[in-house]
Amino acid sequence: MGFRLTPQDTSFFSLFATSAGLLVDATRELTRFLEVEPSGRSAIAQRLRDLEHAADDSTHEVLKKVNSSFITPFDREDIHALAASLDDCMDLIEETADLIVLYHIGDLPTGLTQQFEILARMAEVTAEAMPRLRSLKDLSSYWIEINRLENQADELHRAMVAELFNNATDAVYVIKLKGIIDGFEDAADAFEKVAHVVEGIAVKES
Amino acid sequence: MGFRLTPQDTSFFSLFATSAGLLVDATRELTRFLEVEPSGRSAIAQRLRDLEHAADDSTHEVLKKVNSSFITPFDREDIHALAASLDDCMDLIEETADLIVLYHIGDLPTGLTQQFEILARMAEVTAEAMPRLRSLKDLSSYWIEINRLENQADELHRAMVAELFNNATDAVYVIKLKGIIDGFEDAADAFEKVAHVVEGIAVKES
Amino acid sequence: MGFRLTPQDTSFFSLFATSAGLLVDATRELTRFLEVEPSGRSAIAQRLRDLEHAADDSTHEVLKKVNSSFITPFDREDIHALAASLDDCMDLIEETADLIVLYHIGDLPTGLTQQFEILARMAEVTAEAMPRLRSLKDLSSYWIEINRLENQADELHRAMVAELFNNATDAVYVIKLKGIIDGFEDAADAFEKVAHVVEGIAVKES
Repeated sequence: MGFRLTPQDTSFFSLFATSAGLLVDATRELTRFLEVEPSGRSAIAQRLRDLEHAADDSTHEVLKKVNSSFITPFDREDIHALAASLDDCMDLIEETADLIVLYHIGDLPTGLTQQFEILARMAEVTAEAMPRLRSLKDLSSYWIEINRLENQADELHRAMVAELFNNATDAVYVIKLKGIIDGFEDAADAFEKVAHVVEGIAVKES
Repeated sequence: MGFRLTPQDTSFFSLFATSAGLLVDATRELTRFLEVEPSGRSAIAQRLRDLEHAADDSTHEVLKKVNSSFITPFDREDIHALAASLDDCMDLIEETADLIVLYHIGDLPTGLTQQFEILARMAEVTAEAMPRLRSLKDLSSYWIEINRLENQADELHRAMVAELFNNATDAVYVIKLKGIIDGFEDAADAFEKVAHVVEGIAVKES
Repeated sequence: MGFRLTPQDTSFFSLFATSAGLLVDATRELTRFLEVEPSGRSAIAQRLRDLEHAADDSTHEVLKKVNSSFITPFDREDIHALAASLDDCMDLIEETADLIVLYHIGDLPTGLTQQFEILARMAEVTAEAMPRLRSLKDLSSYWIEINRLENQADELHRAMVAELFNNATDAVYVIKLKGIIDGFEDAADAFEKVAHVVEGIAVKES
């Protein structure tokens, strides 16, 4: 991109920062599942639902803005894809957390602690990267770190699934817990998808 | 888009209308599962297979047309994405309906009635929106309604899964039924995906 | 595309050929699962892990090249999408093969032989098509064949799942084996996705 008209509409960046910030809040909320009694879990699920609604509002703000802006900082369809991929992270986190309540799971497996830590780190790294979308500089450290975290999440996920099966006695419990473990792994994949979208934008615009 | 050459090739729109119309037929066929004896189910699955083949033909017609047209009503890759996303809806409906037969499920859960109603409504709304692709006007009511229906589908899906698990005695039955319930939820997601593609086109072309 | 600057950077094509060649190696490795004792399986999984790392290197080579090239043979985002879709095939093959080891599966179902044959054929057809990306000619036979193979994979997958359920006694075994069968079906879908990306490129560039 050779030059830009100025002043350019910049508040897309703050909307993306808002969405990523809500993901930081959501992943922090997740870790609280391991600190409360089972009776306190539905309150956490409710807060995640609230965060998910806030994220929806932010996504729709982006889409409305795309429609009404004459100049956009990068291609309209990339803005669309980025908003959608951030939204997917939140949806998967909220949805999977809700399964913990819906399934009436008693003791949570210890591996969840690490899954939550990885997701929290992914959210932080993503939130830190959003302001750098403005210059499209220094983004490679972001996607390298996300990639590293996703590999770690993947390895942990495989170990958790193997452990679940090898100690399995109650098949219904296995199905429930696998749904939860898989859901959080899908959330980690969704963060990687965000990084791919950002990488695609950087490739195209640079 | 500033201006267009005329006459423009318009029959892409009728092909999309055909695909969406086949989805209306398919979702109507689904509701028949709840009206027949188990012995009548494979005939329904066969009709869905026929509808799926007809949808394939329509999809390939679009792709052939994209290749041979000098001017297309919107970007070639968007036409491609729209055809593919409509195709996905049909594939998921046909595939999941087939599981009902393959798994030799006896009594179907009552929640399926509502899943089928939502899918039928999604197909109708999609079919009604296709002619509006021509002007790219008045499409926001379409994706708002699809979004509302998808939220409803999602809530229903969670309730059905929770009920399935809480009354679970036979683990194999749980796995089978979860596969079916999840499949129809995936079909609802696929309709939302179509709406996202349409939204993306409207954002880009407007 | 009317004309091209020459000499054009052509080694993207050899990187795609490398990625597809690694998929040929990986699918050949898969068939060895059926020839060895269970004790020999982890060595196969290890070789698949090595192939997956090699494929990762090839993918990153493509992405680095996209960033540093002034002229690319087709749109940067399409190169990106093609590299990512080839990578997905390898990831799914490696990941699912690893489940065979992780789950301590004893006897493998005979249907796996056919799943592996289809995947091997898909990899070969894909590898054969990569050099034709240069001219973007004669690619339709590739995606027609991939489509045919994917339909075959799909039919086989449904039959395997039905058989698994109809002979099911141990629910945990059902869950494990379904995970494996589904994973290889996802790999077949991923090959079809590669063909869709190629089809999209051909549609856009022709």
